[in-house]
Amino acid sequence: MLLQYDGTDFAGSQIQPEQRTVQGVLQSGLSELFKTRIKTVFAGRTDAGVHAREQTVKFLVTQNTIPFEKIAPALNTLMPSDIVVLSSEKVDSDFHSRFSAKKRTYRYFINNKPDVFRKKYTLFHPFKINIDKMNSISDMFLGNRDFRSFCSYRSDTKNYFCNVSELMFFEDNDESVMQISSDRFLHNMVRIILSVFLEYNCDNIGKEDILYILEKKDRRYSPKTISPGGLFLWRTEY
Amino acid sequence: MLLQYDGTDFAGSQIQPEQRTVQGVLQSGLSELFKTRIKTVFAGRTDAGVHAREQTVKFLVTQNTIPFEKIAPALNTLMPSDIVVLSSEKVDSDFHSRFSAKKRTYRYFINNKPDVFRKKYTLFHPFKINIDKMNSISDMFLGNRDFRSFCSYRSDTKNYFCNVSELMFFEDNDESVMQISSDRFLHNMVRIILSVFLEYNCDNIGKEDILYILEKKDRRYSPKTISPGGLFLWRTEY
Repeated sequence: MLLQYDGTDFAGSQIQPEQRTVQGVLQSGLSELFKTRIKTVFAGRTDAGVHAREQTVKFLVTQNTIPFEKIAPALNTLMPSDIVVLSSEKVDSDFHSRFSAKKRTYRYFINNKPDVFRKKYTLFHPFKINIDKMNSISDMFLGNRDFRSFCSYRSDTKNYFCNVSELMFFEDNDESVMQISSDRFLHNMVRIILSVFLEYNCDNIGKEDILYILEKKDRRYSPKTISPGGLFLWRTEY
Repeated sequence: MLLQYDGTDFAGSQIQPEQRTVQGVLQSGLSELFKTRIKTVFAGRTDAGVHAREQTVKFLVTQNTIPFEKIAPALNTLMPSDIVVLSSEKVDSDFHSRFSAKKRTYRYFINNKPDVFRKKYTLFHPFKINIDKMNSISDMFLGNRDFRSFCSYRSDTKNYFCNVSELMFFEDNDESVMQISSDRFLHNMVRIILSVFLEYNCDNIGKEDILYILEKKDRRYSPKTISPGGLFLWRTEY
């Protein structure tokens, strides 16, 4: 299934006891629809407050009388207003929504003027983003690198290597967008990378400082994690 | 001042006792800022649930030590998250935000696929809008006409004439937009006009039916008022 959600009122995508999570709400709906307990696998975890334009979710159901493409509209009748199931289809049993994914893409929306209607979906940054300046250093992040300086302390990963295939800034209407694609992402990685770019945009740090942060492989050298409101899981490719 | 607000959680723009209104919240903030009771005049009333991208508001203050352009940021610190004061400036005392307005423009956003992030700001309509077909009959509404068939029974107006200078449909990203400009609008007028267009889009009514509705000058002949969520007061010209 392809899922879209507004992350504002969720404690992240992954199910947790006593918390409102996307996976928890979705699994309750699926279990009600199929009258049996259903577990789901998401393409990627999103933090509390992060949105998904397209999140891929797989589940297994052994007894099903609903045509596969009708599961999405049926499930939507059981979903709250901040989740929409965009589509549903049958996949091979060896398809894994997390491990079969080859590339994940995130977009971060940034604006520098107040807009009531985009408040939950953009990061407010008081300075105009210099798109050319940002793109001139984006190749420092490309390729297969150790992103330990861009990973939350709370992460339990052993592997800090990510193969970033694209990092670009562009303008969209009156907003600036950072788009980043990689085979995998570490916990808070996109939010810390944007933080570095915003410091560079304001001339608080230079290119040498960014090289230093990358080489140190230590979270203490990179700036603070940016708030999640402007971040969207944009798509996952298989 | 230019004001922007998300109308979802307001009982309309106009102040009413015991209700959360844009004018009520704004006047409370202004009164706190200037330590005296302040009254405001809005360019136009918006119904419950209708948004404003730009609403013009005038007020009079006799004792003021705040530079005029700084009133907007000062007031924003006292506003809830669904109101933003975009700008503030001094005007001549004979400027009237309602009666000096020459042209008001509204936009109605319509989508035909679910989108979590645009749910509060678009009307969901299950059929694709045929832009050319809509624009081919839009001149039936242009000019100075009696719009009694497009006015709520609850209105207390005596004058049903409005001079509609523009009515056009266009596409914006994946959405369809109806834009309409007039010297004045009647209560629910934009929402009833769109309702007629949506019926025409679905071939439920033809051109003759629309002529008949206009000529009857009676609300009973036009279809139901469309929900307010996709409607924006876009701008007011003086």
